[in-house]
Amino acid sequence: MNEIKIFSPATVANVSCGYDVLGFCLDTKGDEMVVRKTKEKGVTITKIVGADLPFETEKNVAGVAALAILEAAKADFGVEIEIYKNIKPGSGVGSSSASASGAVFAINEILGKTFDKQQLTLFGMKGEAVASGVEHADNVAPGLFGGFTLVKSVDPLKIVELPTPSELYATVIHPQIEIKTSEARGILPVKIELSSAIKQWANVGSFISGLYTNDYDLIADSLHDYIVEPHRSQLIPHFKEIRIASLNAGALGCGISGSGPSIFSLSKGSDIANKVANAMKEVYSKTDIKFDIYVTKINTDGVRIINK
Amino acid sequence: MNEIKIFSPATVANVSCGYDVLGFCLDTKGDEMVVRKTKEKGVTITKIVGADLPFETEKNVAGVAALAILEAAKADFGVEIEIYKNIKPGSGVGSSSASASGAVFAINEILGKTFDKQQLTLFGMKGEAVASGVEHADNVAPGLFGGFTLVKSVDPLKIVELPTPSELYATVIHPQIEIKTSEARGILPVKIELSSAIKQWANVGSFISGLYTNDYDLIADSLHDYIVEPHRSQLIPHFKEIRIASLNAGALGCGISGSGPSIFSLSKGSDIANKVANAMKEVYSKTDIKFDIYVTKINTDGVRIINK
Repeated sequence: MNEIKIFSPATVANVSCGYDVLGFCLDTKGDEMVVRKTKEKGVTITKIVGADLPFETEKNVAGVAALAILEAAKADFGVEIEIYKNIKPGSGVGSSSASASGAVFAINEILGKTFDKQQLTLFGMKGEAVASGVEHADNVAPGLFGGFTLVKSVDPLKIVELPTPSELYATVIHPQIEIKTSEARGILPVKIELSSAIKQWANVGSFISGLYTNDYDLIADSLHDYIVEPHRSQLIPHFKEIRIASLNAGALGCGISGSGPSIFSLSKGSDIANKVANAMKEVYSKTDIKFDIYVTKINTDGVRIINK
Repeated sequence: MNEIKIFSPATVANVSCGYDVLGFCLDTKGDEMVVRKTKEKGVTITKIVGADLPFETEKNVAGVAALAILEAAKADFGVEIEIYKNIKPGSGVGSSSASASGAVFAINEILGKTFDKQQLTLFGMKGEAVASGVEHADNVAPGLFGGFTLVKSVDPLKIVELPTPSELYATVIHPQIEIKTSEARGILPVKIELSSAIKQWANVGSFISGLYTNDYDLIADSLHDYIVEPHRSQLIPHFKEIRIASLNAGALGCGISGSGPSIFSLSKGSDIANKVANAMKEVYSKTDIKFDIYVTKINTDGVRIINK
């Protein structure tokens, strides 16, 4: 194979109760990338459509991730990468990680599937670090594995694949304001109350139990965030109204996607997810804030091949 | 039914990663209780064998739990209770909760199973509060439900039943030293590092995933405690050696049972659990500390009827 075109999905990290560990994969929102084998070694970013991102390989998330996998494979070839961004950088649904995941997935296909998804996640994290300064996996993992994932540990990397109840749908609204990941991280306290942490880990446990047992009520009851949301929600205008409107429209839960500003809701069935979208829309429609909104099922495959 | 004899098992709370939320039920260790219907209302403790506990109903854990369920049922009768303690009070394997769980289970049988286990847990917690000052459910719930349980929340009470991989065995060693629950609670910090809390909730998530998928490696990898053990282990002599000896003998994990001083290990299969017992024994045999040790499968039923 000399050329492959792939779809690299947006992802939601944290999922209310699981800061830094939980994530899930979206289906309709994502980037497209073309990766082409070249005789010359190295990585060249030849095209970027839809976002203003650096072409220099070492500064580009996809470029760095690509270099990591090619080096690990001791590849005797290089690649050219075209990136068609549909995920806005800084929107909070894993834009940089989609570039990283897409690049490593595509190159692994060209290599003949040398690496497993756990290893691909490691390469993707190298790219992710270019954007956020930290090698984290909470977007890369759901992007590559699909469905819900748990980052059990980063060093050594251990990703746990979780089941996805078939009727779960996500509604995501992206208010077009800028929050830097560094700012969103900086607003968090270094120390937290033990009593709040206990509530949080109880919810991580019950949420995961709910995924295994298709218990939508338990999932709903677990989608709370006692740790991060009280701080970060201050950075997102009208967050509380959006949350209340979502829940009133029937959402199982609603929270900040990653470090924001996107807000996600999870619902049982597409009908409710669409009602939730209308309710969310209504809140921002009354303001000057521009927004993008979409409803999607959970993508259980992760990055996928468009053609090769 | 006028009289029932039941077995009320010992339980292990916290389970390393799940402070205040996780627990499991032991099979061979437990109290026996006889509960007899009386015409007169009220609760009388008529016999206590094996421990020095108060006979006054209002000061007795079983007594208070019994009053709670009788009152809720608006029962037109009372009960006499005989308690045969095999679980040493203060040993850290839910001695008080066994008395409470046993009493409410037995009375519910006499009532014709009026209440479900969730409701019984609430009554049991009233008794538990007599011993510890706090209504907590992390021993009462596994005692009544059996297997592994998650206390998702206390108010409102929400217990999640978790699956029990069939090859799991527990080894429990009880060094006969005294640690008061209040002391064990007092040694804990009010605030904890967010970074440690993240590792802890990742482990709660992966542990529960391991229970659902019978993944013993994942269970082993999740049985760590970054929050409580570093503090409480100071109260238990030779804790670290016991832990290392257990793991070297093949245990999946080893930690403090409840607030201690008992130490539990989980193993895959009874052979390993017995080897772990020998390894644990060896540590305390070299000291002056008296100890009690037992190997047991996980009890998936909870409190059970001996005869009625």
